[in-house]
Amino acid sequence: MKILDGLKFDDKGLLAAVIQDAGTHEVLMVAFMNREALEKTLSTGLAHFWSRSRQKLWLKGESSGHVQAVRDAYVDCDGDAVVIMVEQKGGACHTGYRSCFYRRLLPKEDRLEVVGKKVFDPDKVYK
Amino acid sequence: MKILDGLKFDDKGLLAAVIQDAGTHEVLMVAFMNREALEKTLSTGLAHFWSRSRQKLWLKGESSGHVQAVRDAYVDCDGDAVVIMVEQKGGACHTGYRSCFYRRLLPKEDRLEVVGKKVFDPDKVYK
Repeated sequence: MKILDGLKFDDKGLLAAVIQDAGTHEVLMVAFMNREALEKTLSTGLAHFWSRSRQKLWLKGESSGHVQAVRDAYVDCDGDAVVIMVEQKGGACHTGYRSCFYRRLLPKEDRLEVVGKKVFDPDKVYK
Repeated sequence: MKILDGLKFDDKGLLAAVIQDAGTHEVLMVAFMNREALEKTLSTGLAHFWSRSRQKLWLKGESSGHVQAVRDAYVDCDGDAVVIMVEQKGGACHTGYRSCFYRRLLPKEDRLEVVGKKVFDPDKVYK
């Protein structure tokens, strides 16, 4: 895809990908994509990422079945970040929450508050 | 702030920050914060970032006046990304658009489509 030539992958070949729920507009997760992951995401319609810890391409939902069907994709002014609008099957977070951002920062009280919704039991999903 | 001790800044001391409009839930921009930028964001109530290109701390809106007033902040499961809900003054993007994500990727046609709304003239704002 020629459109990917204009994007700016960093010194590790990555850009930040924000995954947003196409219906509620909730941010579900932030992960990184290399060119191959973004190309696969756009061509297959299922979100793929580059795992920095495992150093491999990764289909979101490959073990949990909680895939993300792409509805729309946007690129930012600098071409170094994308927003992908998805339909999330199950939950985005490996801890069982719908979104990875299930904790609110409360700076005045200097504590975190769990505000997210748990939608699956990770012990049952990841065996 | 003790809550920041649990966060995971990467090998450059940074984490990804997604800035989301508190009203519309539109993603306005993605940038990077070091610990100091996040601490300033939470203590002053105005979004601060670390500029990777200029290698300095940066108050969003310092030259344009287009500050981002923090309404809420969330951290993800791994502690390596935050979502900050803001009230955006003017536009988030230095090109004059409300959001930096003003272009849609059209993979089948292999082209970008401008879909964002221009809310200011950058030539007048950045003199």
